[in-house]
Amino acid sequence: MNANNIVDATTRSPARVDEVLDRFFSLSTTRAATLAPAYEALWKTLRSNTNGGKRFRPRMVMTAYEGLGGEDLAAAAHVGASFELLHTALIVHDDVIDRDFVRRGIPNVSGSYRDIAHTAGLSIPTAEHRGMSVAVIAGDLALTGAFRLMGLAETNSATRARLLNILDDAVFASAAGELIDVDFSLYSGVPSVEEIVDMERLKTAVYSFEAPLQAGAVLAGAPESVISALGKFGREIGIAYQIVDDLLGVFGDEHATGKTTIGDIREGKRTTLIAYASTRPEWSAISHLVGKSSLTPAEAQIVRTELEACGAKDFTERLAGEHADRAVAALADGNVPQRLVDELTPIVAAVLERVR
Amino acid sequence: MNANNIVDATTRSPARVDEVLDRFFSLSTTRAATLAPAYEALWKTLRSNTNGGKRFRPRMVMTAYEGLGGEDLAAAAHVGASFELLHTALIVHDDVIDRDFVRRGIPNVSGSYRDIAHTAGLSIPTAEHRGMSVAVIAGDLALTGAFRLMGLAETNSATRARLLNILDDAVFASAAGELIDVDFSLYSGVPSVEEIVDMERLKTAVYSFEAPLQAGAVLAGAPESVISALGKFGREIGIAYQIVDDLLGVFGDEHATGKTTIGDIREGKRTTLIAYASTRPEWSAISHLVGKSSLTPAEAQIVRTELEACGAKDFTERLAGEHADRAVAALADGNVPQRLVDELTPIVAAVLERVR
Repeated sequence: MNANNIVDATTRSPARVDEVLDRFFSLSTTRAATLAPAYEALWKTLRSNTNGGKRFRPRMVMTAYEGLGGEDLAAAAHVGASFELLHTALIVHDDVIDRDFVRRGIPNVSGSYRDIAHTAGLSIPTAEHRGMSVAVIAGDLALTGAFRLMGLAETNSATRARLLNILDDAVFASAAGELIDVDFSLYSGVPSVEEIVDMERLKTAVYSFEAPLQAGAVLAGAPESVISALGKFGREIGIAYQIVDDLLGVFGDEHATGKTTIGDIREGKRTTLIAYASTRPEWSAISHLVGKSSLTPAEAQIVRTELEACGAKDFTERLAGEHADRAVAALADGNVPQRLVDELTPIVAAVLERVR
Repeated sequence: MNANNIVDATTRSPARVDEVLDRFFSLSTTRAATLAPAYEALWKTLRSNTNGGKRFRPRMVMTAYEGLGGEDLAAAAHVGASFELLHTALIVHDDVIDRDFVRRGIPNVSGSYRDIAHTAGLSIPTAEHRGMSVAVIAGDLALTGAFRLMGLAETNSATRARLLNILDDAVFASAAGELIDVDFSLYSGVPSVEEIVDMERLKTAVYSFEAPLQAGAVLAGAPESVISALGKFGREIGIAYQIVDDLLGVFGDEHATGKTTIGDIREGKRTTLIAYASTRPEWSAISHLVGKSSLTPAEAQIVRTELEACGAKDFTERLAGEHADRAVAALADGNVPQRLVDELTPIVAAVLERVR
């Protein structure tokens, strides 16, 4: 996902998080070098795959933590770094599941190792399997690293246990979402809008928004009412974010998002747009194009025109707006201190700005 | 690996471990059911894949813990259950990497989901990919569960931090071993005996012997000298176990081990036997048969005969014996209490018994 606007909207710097991640990767790479050169190389690949990120989830942790008066930035940075490694783990394994070898134009872990193996003379299928095999291992290491860094956050043992529970819950939700997504992509029917929203919430919104915000609040020792309000905010803004992502995947500005506007249509990705459209009479005009692997730009334009004509675009924009409104309402319930409300509110606008 | 003799040689019961695992899976399955029926089904599959085990690693934990006077069996059972889930995670992901859909004659996670998808009308390659995708997710859940259960062991925070480090180190070693093994299987040269032993130690021996024994000792509050001696014992007996496994894969009693004696030769598995044989003149007579996918039983017999003739079988048996001797020596250094020495010594004999 592209998070530039949101990164601009957050005022907390992830510099401390980068320090924690740098130390983690330096130590791990040094240890790996004592076992095998190939293992050292894998850790370097994992590090460069982690360094590309915008530190989006750490920013959520730091914003909640500092906005609630937390002062132990080193502890918060460990929590933030833990979520960044969780993100790495999940996308590395997601790419294995989606058979993707490239992320944002650069070879991912699977792609790097596929290319090395192919250059060394292995056939494409064997090289691809090697790439995916190494990515399975790399994702396990990143997931383990997430638990390690969370466990290293300096705090009392009750708080640490709760942070580990939040991390555990995030993995639990994300695995459910990933499983449901795999099922959506394999079977021919189109799920309902509610089913899509639920899948997107589980797969991405929980670990990207809800869990990091709650973790920051827990570490800051915030009252339950605040933790709960931030969880609600994170859930709703996370859903809005994913719905906007669905829109950008078809109607976005490729230059601004770095994401093609033909890929989702070509692969027949089940999104809120498609789920709504499939219930409209206009669907019969485009259903054969959605998921057509040889889709042309002209055909993609027909799909876009019909998605607008049938009201899917309007519906989806409205749906994103509704969830954003609920996010704002969660902040306005009186529990969250005004200074944190003031920091989080621009994020809501930034999420919606992406399609305006 | 087949561990019947060793299971017979351990006197500590894993009943408490089973209780912890039952509770973990029951809670997880109930939570999963609230998210999606497919997710509940995945948890049931993961549970049945975990229930097949002999609780070998938990037995190591319990033996060290109780043998050192530990009395909080509930805490020890959490540590034992953590290692059992780590084992599940590693074999589920190892099967993805090896494209195996069956383990011990029963469909594994990948196989179960491949079969469901194929029955539902998907092509074999698509069904296989679905099986492997679900197995990636399932392994992540088991790995997360391992960290969760370790974190739940009731002990002081310094001990818990150390236990989490041991678990982390076990994943770190195992990932290195898996990576080196992937490389061995892809490139044509035969590694040296030392390289094979090192790979086997990292991939399996650390997390199966060394780490569980050390974790049991740490939880029992044992002195450093005992933790270190048990680590040495675990490392050496773990290596001996893997070398014996190499022998059984070619010369074993299929009925007793439940493992074919043709599979390793057919897939060209890099083992200590093959590494030694490749340095002998007799190798030229069999190198074309090792890794021949259409290998016949008669050809497998030729390989066995030459492995005996060139001294590879004798060498490998001797090598296993040397590591077993070092394991015994580690116990005899005066640090480990006699009652625990008396419990661990039969395990050494049981490891070697497997080929006698």
